[in-house]
Amino acid sequence: MNKPIINSVGLNPQTITSVTRGPLPGSKKIYVDGVPFREVALSGGEPSVRLYDTSGPYTDESAKVDIEKGLAARRRDWIVARGDVEEYEGRTRKPEDDGLRRGELLSVPQFDRAGLKPLRAKAGKNVTQLHYARQGIVTEEMKFIAVRENLGRSALADGNSFGANIPERITPEFVRDEIARGRAIIPANINHPETEPMIIGRNFLTKVNANIGNSIVTSSVAEEIDKMVWSTRWGADTVMDLSTGRHIHTIREWLVRNSSVPIGTVPIYQALEKVGGIAEELTWEIYRDTLVEQCEQGVDYFTVHAGVRLAHIPLSANRVTGIVSRGGSILAKWCLSHHKENFLYTHFEEICELLKQYDVSFSLGDGLRPGSIADANDAAQFAELETLGELNKIAQKHDVQVMIEGPGHVPMHKIKENMDRQLAACDEAPFYTLGPLTTDVAPGYDHITSAIGAAMIGWFGTAMLCYVTPKEHLGLPDRDDVKAGVIAYRIAAHAADLAKGHPAARIWDDAMSKARFEFRWRDQFALAMDPETAQAYHDETLPADGAKVAHFCSMCGPKFCSMKISQEVRDAAKGRNDTLSTAEIRAAMAKKAEEFKQGGGEIYVSKS
Amino acid sequence: MNKPIINSVGLNPQTITSVTRGPLPGSKKIYVDGVPFREVALSGGEPSVRLYDTSGPYTDESAKVDIEKGLAARRRDWIVARGDVEEYEGRTRKPEDDGLRRGELLSVPQFDRAGLKPLRAKAGKNVTQLHYARQGIVTEEMKFIAVRENLGRSALADGNSFGANIPERITPEFVRDEIARGRAIIPANINHPETEPMIIGRNFLTKVNANIGNSIVTSSVAEEIDKMVWSTRWGADTVMDLSTGRHIHTIREWLVRNSSVPIGTVPIYQALEKVGGIAEELTWEIYRDTLVEQCEQGVDYFTVHAGVRLAHIPLSANRVTGIVSRGGSILAKWCLSHHKENFLYTHFEEICELLKQYDVSFSLGDGLRPGSIADANDAAQFAELETLGELNKIAQKHDVQVMIEGPGHVPMHKIKENMDRQLAACDEAPFYTLGPLTTDVAPGYDHITSAIGAAMIGWFGTAMLCYVTPKEHLGLPDRDDVKAGVIAYRIAAHAADLAKGHPAARIWDDAMSKARFEFRWRDQFALAMDPETAQAYHDETLPADGAKVAHFCSMCGPKFCSMKISQEVRDAAKGRNDTLSTAEIRAAMAKKAEEFKQGGGEIYVSKS
Repeated sequence: MNKPIINSVGLNPQTITSVTRGPLPGSKKIYVDGVPFREVALSGGEPSVRLYDTSGPYTDESAKVDIEKGLAARRRDWIVARGDVEEYEGRTRKPEDDGLRRGELLSVPQFDRAGLKPLRAKAGKNVTQLHYARQGIVTEEMKFIAVRENLGRSALADGNSFGANIPERITPEFVRDEIARGRAIIPANINHPETEPMIIGRNFLTKVNANIGNSIVTSSVAEEIDKMVWSTRWGADTVMDLSTGRHIHTIREWLVRNSSVPIGTVPIYQALEKVGGIAEELTWEIYRDTLVEQCEQGVDYFTVHAGVRLAHIPLSANRVTGIVSRGGSILAKWCLSHHKENFLYTHFEEICELLKQYDVSFSLGDGLRPGSIADANDAAQFAELETLGELNKIAQKHDVQVMIEGPGHVPMHKIKENMDRQLAACDEAPFYTLGPLTTDVAPGYDHITSAIGAAMIGWFGTAMLCYVTPKEHLGLPDRDDVKAGVIAYRIAAHAADLAKGHPAARIWDDAMSKARFEFRWRDQFALAMDPETAQAYHDETLPADGAKVAHFCSMCGPKFCSMKISQEVRDAAKGRNDTLSTAEIRAAMAKKAEEFKQGGGEIYVSKS
Repeated sequence: MNKPIINSVGLNPQTITSVTRGPLPGSKKIYVDGVPFREVALSGGEPSVRLYDTSGPYTDESAKVDIEKGLAARRRDWIVARGDVEEYEGRTRKPEDDGLRRGELLSVPQFDRAGLKPLRAKAGKNVTQLHYARQGIVTEEMKFIAVRENLGRSALADGNSFGANIPERITPEFVRDEIARGRAIIPANINHPETEPMIIGRNFLTKVNANIGNSIVTSSVAEEIDKMVWSTRWGADTVMDLSTGRHIHTIREWLVRNSSVPIGTVPIYQALEKVGGIAEELTWEIYRDTLVEQCEQGVDYFTVHAGVRLAHIPLSANRVTGIVSRGGSILAKWCLSHHKENFLYTHFEEICELLKQYDVSFSLGDGLRPGSIADANDAAQFAELETLGELNKIAQKHDVQVMIEGPGHVPMHKIKENMDRQLAACDEAPFYTLGPLTTDVAPGYDHITSAIGAAMIGWFGTAMLCYVTPKEHLGLPDRDDVKAGVIAYRIAAHAADLAKGHPAARIWDDAMSKARFEFRWRDQFALAMDPETAQAYHDETLPADGAKVAHFCSMCGPKFCSMKISQEVRDAAKGRNDTLSTAEIRAAMAKKAEEFKQGGGEIYVSKS
């Protein structure tokens, strides 16, 4: 087993941060046309398997990573070459960006930008991938994604994609077209050139987001960096920084500079910190200034709860769990205390004007999502969804990329309605759902209650699944919870891709199953979503190294192993041990069975 | 938190066995008409919640439990009172019952039956619950079940039951009728009077089975008793003893005598031990003798792979993973090496004649279930299902209770076809499925890959879900794995009940959600499927005792707590803090919103 290399960095005077590096056991990082993959070499003459890889340079043993300096700005040349951006001085940093009170000093180390200035669109330019797509331009990001999404696919597998439009091979032109239709997005702020481009849309592989972030109650800068790297190691396609305590600006800077996946935020959280946590004191000016701050830092998508309209709030009055979205509740409080329409709704076009200068995507927040089985699919939820549909049309007019957030807590029989209504209301803009949790009664296991719902809604068409960890409803996730959440959601996403008939998905399952049938234990571990856990569990029962080549499974032992007997059955059917084609085996077995039938096979019938 | 009492018993000279006792934290065992429930008392004037309880006397602090003596034979009086059974000497025990070789001695302690003789039907009598039901007799078992299944139900909740027929209230007559139709079974061997009667059928609560059992590779008698009690503590409705190593008879005796839930087995495993593990040497006589042995011990249901017909075996030749059922592969090997029809198929009516003397139910095994995504829903699988349908008709003719086993590994888009075909082929006999696993690629997490499929097929109509633990494909489950598997499956079963619209299911979720919204933390822990884990996770972030009454959640802290703000929103809408009805709140909020609308609410529209 490869031993992970640890990169240490002295971010916090009290604790030394370390991030896990090195490939997963049995896997190797490869690049095809500059696009990274996790490649698993197999034994027994089997072809190697190429898997999607979200982990960035951290799993590349040859890559030099220095957290103090940040990752290489691989996209910067592409961005600059388009000729439509310019450096500028940027906004002046303020103490309240880090939630500091008057006279309070920063107490955490700062990322050194080394004089790097932010980029924005030149006057009158629109630098979104959507804008380029509609001009017929295939960007470098789109080409990268076409390579990335193909994996080792051949033909379309069987499946039911509920009207999605998954092609046999992804071409750069297909990527462009899906973006142009508003059916997929590439979150790619021009100030986050460290990213490896990825796409979110129902005709591509289902993606997973991991939420991290400190809160006023707990957690440090160093822990958040570690969690970010850790979550992408296990398969997070994007990471949302939901920090709400002190040092928000500083944490985000460290995360963005060291993240190869897009970073999302909910800017209203930081805006609220700037007004001392008093929702009523929020203003459009403070919010807008926060957006500029985050656009310049390189946040790739913003959750904006512009759909929480004043008129919708009474619809939530009879709910069992009221408003459970933090952003939604903050805005509801603002609306009610001022008796005014949500300022995000009234200023929505101004937000579009800003976002298109940096190519920040909207994630239109579902502030009225249900927080319990009782509240699923109610009037408040669907009223907001209709508004999100309107807002999507406005953003599309500005060529700003949009995805739509969805529930929440939903029992299984109400999940599909969510997807159907979203597709209809939002013109197929990518759906990005939290779970949904299919029951309320299992706190401590909500990665499982929600993986059930996530797999289903992913199958129905959700483009990205926001993970839920075992700590949901109970506390902030630690490192183990982050991994548990990401793995549960990678399972849900992959199960969804299989059920949709995604051409590349089945290759992985078939390789694993073949390795299983042929007792290639090391191949099974290497192919596993989590090779470390798979091998550790096998070691618990059969720790001997010889057991890794044993022709039986540790569950049943040698005599009762069905796969072993099943192989003997094949041999018996052949009557010998040398190789026959499966067609020959089938013919031989059919012949034996036929002989039997003619010789008195109807024994049972004659007795009854 | 209640401290579990541990009952120790010196079963194994090397290790002292202990089983966990005492109620779950915050719960209390109550009895209603002799039927046990887990009752959760709540604060804040909320009514207590009554939950289904599979844990037997082990969670009853006042019950005396002595593993050396076994549980009280509560059903014995009912059985004897029917006047159709008699004691008899029973079969003579043989060394090979425990897999002992010539001259080998038993090395584990024996359960002392204290001279108790087995029961069987008097000559010409049929003692199955199905037989009684068809005579119009409502048994004590049926009455018990009617109380048990009702919980605190009121009206039918909303849901989609896919044509199931779930009544508002379960009556003894409804139970009888469902049994009589063959649409539900009560596994209840007359030699296992220690059980608390339970029912398996699609119009009742979805049930969960936990597999335990030693193998030749690992595990001891003591561990298996502990796992059995442990699995029922977390919600296993039945337990299958899949032991395959030495001491099979002895382990089973200890399990049956101490189990308040039905015990299932796969008798072919023991029969194979009796012939030294050589499938070809199996005979109908050895198998039949094994059935008698297990009927007398009190096994409640037998997995019988009578559907693995010789003619079906060639259909599996091209599979990626061949035959993955142990029983299926054993019988396939027998069939091919003799070139004869499966002896379980040819002797099926003889098996019926035997089972009806003890009321052992059939679990018709799916020996050709798919073991990989690639093999799902193939010709071999469905050919066997058709045969299981034929066999069901024969068993029904004998008034022997039947359930039908199902897959396996199935991608989501192929799950419903399994249910639809089973209902059609098997006249709605209860379906009992293993998972299904929705992907092959996550060994170490197959409780999750399969909980997704289990929840879905449970919703579609599966009556009992056979759990899968994290160790599936890798090793034998230990105590932690058993708990992880049972909880994942209780989640799947409950999510299925919610989606079917089961009248009693929603009560639990609503109680939890209400407790959540009102920050009744201790009520949330008490109501949790696993109170210990829920509280432990909360303690990690906010360990102080005061935090258990804090009006904010440990995820977001006081300022960002959406539920807190949401409550403030309600207060703001009221304009005061005293109690208003939700109708009043809604009216007040609607009025405010209306005022706003009339005063210029169309701000956004005027700008666009």
